Formats: sequence, structure tokens, C-alpha cells
Amino acid sequence: MSADRPLLGAIEAGGTKFVLGVGHGPDAIIEQVQIPTRDPEVTLAESLAFFARHPDVAAIGIGSFGPLERNRSDAKWGHILSTPKPGWSDCDLAGTIARALNVPVAFDTDVNAAALAEARLGAARNATVSVYITIGTGIGGGVIADGQIVGGKAHPELGHMRPRRAADDQDFAGHCPFHGDCLEGLASGPAIIARWGQSLSHLAPDHGAHGLIAGYLAEACNTLRAALAPDAIVLGGGVMGTPGLFDRIVAEAAARDGGYFALPAAQVIRRPALSPVSGLAGAFLLAADLL
Amino acid sequence: MSADRPLLGAIEAGGTKFVLGVGHGPDAIIEQVQIPTRDPEVTLAESLAFFARHPDVAAIGIGSFGPLERNRSDAKWGHILSTPKPGWSDCDLAGTIARALNVPVAFDTDVNAAALAEARLGAARNATVSVYITIGTGIGGGVIADGQIVGGKAHPELGHMRPRRAADDQDFAGHCPFHGDCLEGLASGPAIIARWGQSLSHLAPDHGAHGLIAGYLAEACNTLRAALAPDAIVLGGGVMGTPGLFDRIVAEAAARDGGYFALPAAQVIRRPALSPVSGLAGAFLLAADLL
Repeated sequence: MSADRPLLGAIEAGGTKFVLGVGHGPDAIIEQVQIPTRDPEVTLAESLAFFARHPDVAAIGIGSFGPLERNRSDAKWGHILSTPKPGWSDCDLAGTIARALNVPVAFDTDVNAAALAEARLGAARNATVSVYITIGTGIGGGVIADGQIVGGKAHPELGHMRPRRAADDQDFAGHCPFHGDCLEGLASGPAIIARWGQSLSHLAPDHGAHGLIAGYLAEACNTLRAALAPDAIVLGGGVMGTPGLFDRIVAEAAARDGGYFALPAAQVIRRPALSPVSGLAGAFLLAADLL
Repeated sequence: MSADRPLLGAIEAGGTKFVLGVGHGPDAIIEQVQIPTRDPEVTLAESLAFFARHPDVAAIGIGSFGPLERNRSDAKWGHILSTPKPGWSDCDLAGTIARALNVPVAFDTDVNAAALAEARLGAARNATVSVYITIGTGIGGGVIADGQIVGGKAHPELGHMRPRRAADDQDFAGHCPFHGDCLEGLASGPAIIARWGQSLSHLAPDHGAHGLIAGYLAEACNTLRAALAPDAIVLGGGVMGTPGLFDRIVAEAAARDGGYFALPAAQVIRRPALSPVSGLAGAFLLAADLL
């Protein structure tokens, strides 16, 4: 069955590691390796060496950390844009791979890829419109409608929404270098550590941080419910591993929505089904869609 | 040319008036009338009498005030849902029209219809992803991707996003019966009148209301930019007729975005091109899409 399908390559390009895969799809992976993200020259050379062992790959999908240029009609298509990660700004990630291997390459954000995988194969597979959000080192996400990434010239920056601050939490300036107390500046892993000295899962269950973080993530969910009426919002990422957090978010979202939305919070807000492989799975889907 | 295309009917069903049209498309309207919105029996009878004079109509598109059931697989498809408008809750608007005239009927929100028209024919016609927001008696909107309405089981309720309150504006409780100080509770026409006694366009240009309202609408634009990265956000509705408001919103959105988004505020945020006929134009498009 899988042999009937073309051989595909997939790259989940993250800030700390690259995951490389070859297979006939996310359900038929033949080989998968993980390499640390170093400077672009080393990391791309190692990636190319991996794919050189699989010369029959017909297309490669890349889900990458951003910001990046996803617009094929832009001269910078395939590049990482301005990033604090040393050496990676302006790296022509997709173009380098495409030229070296002479195959078609699809290129999008890691979170758009993960959103696509959760929508087609995972927690949102019965949803027409869905959002995937990862809450970890950063906060990001993607929107899927009818099985396709909702994307124009640019890509979402979901972490940079500004949730309303809680009445009893007006003082913390936030941890985002661009916006201070945007969602990422309040609820990402590094923001939590900057504020309370340890990760959310290490803070006692009765620590006030749990309620605050759940509240900010519930605000974000309700904003997306108002803006898009998604059938599903899938919450992934390391911070979501905190015991009790998911249930608190659902309860806060329901408590704050005034009973107004047609779809209840407990139906819309979901745990991921594919974590932690959703990014790589999505990269395979991006590759398959090229053919 | 227009005679090659089927004859279509269109209804923009608003809370104060119904606009009825017949033609070969929004660019080829043959007859258009406007009737006041009274109780459903009277208003639907008048609507049917209009279409009875055009027996060759092949399909009808309806863009209606909401909330409404847009999901065709739901038993309540075509109905207005719970609304404060006397008599209209649970009205089977689309079903009544379809059964009486025996034609296929498309049914969506007035703002999704307007969003579709601006995306295909108007201010967002070069955009892959766009949002339309109307700021008037209420605040609502729709999202379009690749020329189609982004819609799952439910429809957006853009007015019920909760923008961050301005530091110097923490006291007004807001005018929304469901959420108090959501966007609609702060920046709709009735909210402005409830707060300052007159409409924004009647308040002196140096009145603080102008900056506050521009700020809340800019927050909403920036939230949508973060969530969706739309190529265009089109701002329509009566409140947007206030002199200077559009430019203030663009300036506030740019000032608050930290230079972070790939597409600048002044490129994304746009005036409508089809106002005030975008809802009817969209209803024609919905009808045409059925055939």
C-alpha cells in the first residue's frame, strides 16, 4: 500500500533540533533522525547528508521555526527572516535544500505544519475550521480551513495577540522583547520562568500562577472563538504538559464567554492527538500536497 | 453578456430593513427594493411577493443578521437563532423562502456575505486572506480565504472579542448585555451613545472618545493580524463614517504592533470599496455559488 505512494522527505526545523524523516507519509515513515540545530552551514550539510542516502525522494516538506517567508511569489521565499537565533537570519533554508537535491520543496511554519497534521489526521480531523496553538518556548499557531492552511502573504503570529490583563495582575511588564505583555510575553515557558523562577509544572498546584496562565490562554481561546468560530482549538506544547492546566483553560474559557458562542468551550478546546510528532507529520503532508 | 448568466435573487436581511434584489449578479442588478423589517410573517410575505414577480430566479442568496444556523447538516439550518429582536428567534428564514419559491437557497450572515463581496470584488480583491468588519449598531465580521468564507459549524462573532482596556479607561462597564466591555460593548454606535450621549461623528474632534475608540479598533485589528496574518482588513459600517477615524486606527495599529508583523498596518487596514451594497452583493455571490 505505502509502496504505491511516492517517497517523501520531511523536515521539522526547530530552534534547538531538526527532525528529518523519509517515508511515504506520516503513517509510513521509513527513517527518522534528529540533529541539534547549530549554525546553518553545519545543520544544512547534515540534513543534506541524510537525504543523500534517500535519492528517490520525490518532494520535501519543511515546517520551520520563523519568522519566515512563505509567499512563493516573493524573492525571499524559503528564507528565515529576522531572527534572534545567531546566524539564521536570512538563511535560504528551502532554496538550499531544493537546489542541492533538485526536488520540489514546500515551506511553511512548523506550527502551520502541525496545525495541518492535527486537522487532517489528529484532534481536529472532524473540524472544518481549526486552530492549533503551541505554548512552549514561544507561542505560535496556525489556522486550517477545509484541510488547507489559511495563509496569505504572511503567517500568523498567534503568540503576539494581547490578551486582556487580569484585574489582579497589572504589574508584570511581560517578557516579549517586542510587545512586553503579549500572550507570549505572559504565558510562554520563558515568561513563566522569568516571573516565578521555575516552570509552571514545578509550581505548587495552589500557586496563583496556574490560574493566571489558564486565564490568559482562555482569553486567547475566546478571542479566536469570536474571530473565527473554529470547530476546534488544539492546545499543544511543553507548557500544556502542566497537570491540570488544560482543564483550567476550558473552565475559564466557558466562565468568560457569557454563554454566547454557538459551540461550547469544552467541545472546541482540545488536547493534541499527534504531539510531539505533529510538526514532522505536517511536513510530510506539505510534501505530498506538492505532487 | 449578463443574459448568459442565470437570474439570481439576493436578500440582505437586516434588523431594520430587508434589501431585495434580482439580477444576473452584483454587477447586473435588474431590480432592487428595500422594505422595513417588521415581524417575520409580514416581512417574509413582502419578500415572497417581490420574488413572485421574477419567476425565473434560479437560486437565492441570503445574507442575514444573526445569530443564525449556517450549518447545512443541522436541523435548524436556515433559522435565525436566539435574538433580542421580537418575533425573529427561531424564524426559519431560508427554509420559508426555499419552500415557497422552490429554488435552492444559500444562507449565511450578512457580514460573511459582505466579506465575500469585498474579497472577490472590492477592497480585498488582491488578498488571499481577508477580514471584513462592520462597526455600526453592532460589530461583526467575516473571514475569507482563497475566495471562500472561512466557516465551520458556527459563524464568527467578531464584536465579542475583548480588546485590552486602555490604561486611562478602566471604569466604563461596557454596553454589551453578554460581555460588558467586549469590542461591541465599547466601540459600537450604541455603546458610544450610551457613554457620551451622542455619536462619535458628533463629538468634537479633540474629544477623547476619538482616541479611545480608534485604540480599541486598532487592538482588534492587531489581534486579527496576529491570529490570521490577513492580507487585508476592511473596516466598514456607520461608525467608520466618523471623519478621521480610519486614519487614527491605522496610526494606532502601527504604533502598537512593535514593528513585528510582516505586513504593515497601512497596507493591511483598508476602507471598504462596496459600501453600502456589500451585503447584497455578497448575497448574489452566495446564490451564484450554489449553481
